[in-house]
Amino acid sequence: MTTPLRLGIAGLGTVGAGVVKIIQSRANLLAQRSGRPLTITAVSARTRDKDRGVSLDAYDWEDDPVALAQRDDIDVFVELMGGSDGPAKAATEAAIAAGKDVVTANKAMLAIHGQALAEAAEAAGHVIRFEAAVAGGIPVVKALTEGLAGNQITRIMGVMNGTCNYILTRMEGEGLPYETVFNEANALGYLEADPTLDVGGIDAGHKLALLASIAYGTKVNFAAMDLEGIERISIDDIRQAADMGFRIKLLGVAQMTGRGLECRMTPCLVPAASPLGQLEGPTNMVVLEGDAVGQIVLRGAGAGEGPTASAVMSDVIDIARGIRVSTFGQPATALETARPARASAAAPYYLRMELEDRPGALAKVATVLGESGISIDRMRQYRHDSPSAPVLIVTHKTTRDALDHARAGFADTGVVAKDPVMIRIEMV
Amino acid sequence: MTTPLRLGIAGLGTVGAGVVKIIQSRANLLAQRSGRPLTITAVSARTRDKDRGVSLDAYDWEDDPVALAQRDDIDVFVELMGGSDGPAKAATEAAIAAGKDVVTANKAMLAIHGQALAEAAEAAGHVIRFEAAVAGGIPVVKALTEGLAGNQITRIMGVMNGTCNYILTRMEGEGLPYETVFNEANALGYLEADPTLDVGGIDAGHKLALLASIAYGTKVNFAAMDLEGIERISIDDIRQAADMGFRIKLLGVAQMTGRGLECRMTPCLVPAASPLGQLEGPTNMVVLEGDAVGQIVLRGAGAGEGPTASAVMSDVIDIARGIRVSTFGQPATALETARPARASAAAPYYLRMELEDRPGALAKVATVLGESGISIDRMRQYRHDSPSAPVLIVTHKTTRDALDHARAGFADTGVVAKDPVMIRIEMV
Repeated sequence: MTTPLRLGIAGLGTVGAGVVKIIQSRANLLAQRSGRPLTITAVSARTRDKDRGVSLDAYDWEDDPVALAQRDDIDVFVELMGGSDGPAKAATEAAIAAGKDVVTANKAMLAIHGQALAEAAEAAGHVIRFEAAVAGGIPVVKALTEGLAGNQITRIMGVMNGTCNYILTRMEGEGLPYETVFNEANALGYLEADPTLDVGGIDAGHKLALLASIAYGTKVNFAAMDLEGIERISIDDIRQAADMGFRIKLLGVAQMTGRGLECRMTPCLVPAASPLGQLEGPTNMVVLEGDAVGQIVLRGAGAGEGPTASAVMSDVIDIARGIRVSTFGQPATALETARPARASAAAPYYLRMELEDRPGALAKVATVLGESGISIDRMRQYRHDSPSAPVLIVTHKTTRDALDHARAGFADTGVVAKDPVMIRIEMV
Repeated sequence: MTTPLRLGIAGLGTVGAGVVKIIQSRANLLAQRSGRPLTITAVSARTRDKDRGVSLDAYDWEDDPVALAQRDDIDVFVELMGGSDGPAKAATEAAIAAGKDVVTANKAMLAIHGQALAEAAEAAGHVIRFEAAVAGGIPVVKALTEGLAGNQITRIMGVMNGTCNYILTRMEGEGLPYETVFNEANALGYLEADPTLDVGGIDAGHKLALLASIAYGTKVNFAAMDLEGIERISIDDIRQAADMGFRIKLLGVAQMTGRGLECRMTPCLVPAASPLGQLEGPTNMVVLEGDAVGQIVLRGAGAGEGPTASAVMSDVIDIARGIRVSTFGQPATALETARPARASAAAPYYLRMELEDRPGALAKVATVLGESGISIDRMRQYRHDSPSAPVLIVTHKTTRDALDHARAGFADTGVVAKDPVMIRIEMV
């Protein structure tokens, strides 16, 4: 097969420019592997005159990504604009309507509109591929959709927002408070224009929602995700968790349980000696667990020009090779509507609270825990100079309901200075 | 597409039985993902009457795997017999001649005959897939062939023999000598019938040769590999490497250099804090490095019923889905003959030697190193009760030639008690 595969690329930011560079610099290698040449027909971006470190002279220019998507002389529409709605969605819909395959890095768009877009593409006999939308260069969509296709997936876990992991590991390494590191990261341009997308867990949540859909054959349901960011993590929690052999990560977990599909992106404590616990800086890690394969761990750069462009190229080469897999691993119309689990599976929890330093205070706390059905695995009270004493508790497995009951009870004791910090411990 | 994909399975050991179990227990899930039912038509093994924990009543039996491979009512021949030649090769050749696709877990056969088999299959328009041949359940063949297809691969590293890693980590953990742990592992059935396949690095070398072929677009050339087993690793080396921040692994490294294709499976020191250094027990790890993606680390079970069967199923489902990729990622006839690198890239080395305890001994050793052009990064001499003193040296980057020169020089000094241990340090 020597017919070229003709691409239209919309969005020429870091990733778009990276894709153009790979296609220009590795033409022979790509053609050998793809079995046919890969060519760029036309490109589109908001600004034409901008130095992107790459020549675009050989390509047609379209101001309007929708017009690009509809061109007769492209086979694949490569959407690298971003944003859940607006031009990205309009152009993707136009591409599908015009009979193109779509490659996208847009996790937000797919987490919200993935079901509708996949149904439309599949009805037209075309594919939407999105390796670059999840965990950057790590080929996790392919690993899950194809590599582990013989497994009933039992659990997915992931640290998939490099910025959050950078903030948490830098807080720990330098002993700095959250605000300081957040401001640093912002100044360095590590955060999205709306930082809540990163530190609020939304970006990582979008990624997890997509993986959960593939793993469990269910419609993407980002709205049902249990979402909590890292804004409330203090350097005290990081230090004291470390003291007990744990590290704090913004961890995504998706598992199908008897109560429904549990899907959450929240801060968790993980054992410091586990692969997830050892993860430093902006690196991403995804853990896939299947009934046959056991545990597979994938680790790599979760963002950046090269890694994300590598993932885009993987999808493009798949299409060139004639590899056509449904967006979520089976026909979109066959995906089921998952019942969201009302509560998470039981787990041990880490509690940190400030107790007023007077006789009987600890007894009152212990009584509340006992009455809530929560038993204590380990407890530490630290030396202190202040009028209140920091107390750490690691519980045995318990539930959110029990913890909510205890939280209300603590408030009534009159000895717990502030609302306690409660962080789930995920045994990985 | 609802035409079933019909399998003939030859070899019903652990992996074969595992494949049958998955197909029997997950029929609906597999059909949904594959877009068509997967059925087993017939099976073959050396012994018919044997409890394999699974019913074979529904399948035809063939005593002869060649006859199985030639049946008109199978689409895919699943070769799980093992052995580089003999029945496995004969049946695979018969399957190709009869127009079947082939899925195999047979690293030895492909490392020796992969080029000829791939050429034959591709000439007939069929595929040979071998995810299960490398690193068990880790989808590394797919990650490299497809997931990183947009990259020029710069280096592959891997710990891909679980038994060797089990022996090394158990020696370290329990402080036991090699022979003791080797005998233990043998008694537990962890070793191949010919243990040299494991501890001599041959099995892992086969796997690395296959990955190198995909990565660099070259014909498999197992014979050119630099191969060294773990038989000479002593508990002293393990301890003293640990003392300097390293761990010893049987590490495969394949990289294309200006001097040719460097491909070796040898004991190496790796930093204890690196992902490879942290690997415990029988777990496998493969590190893939590409010019765009940077470093991707894959970790999982490298052997066993479930993991290996999972990898076989991945290939079967690919074929059911219509995914057809050349065996080594590009047409076998397009693969180049790599020039084997005459020498490895320069690297730091760990040297351990016993020095006679008399004045000037260390000076003589240092002089030999200097004259060989080897500079010293770190050196330690340990307290001792014996007449000879253990001395450890970590060199700066140097070459094998320089080390061979030094080795000869040491022998001439008259103060070096035994042939020194020299182990490469791989900076991962």
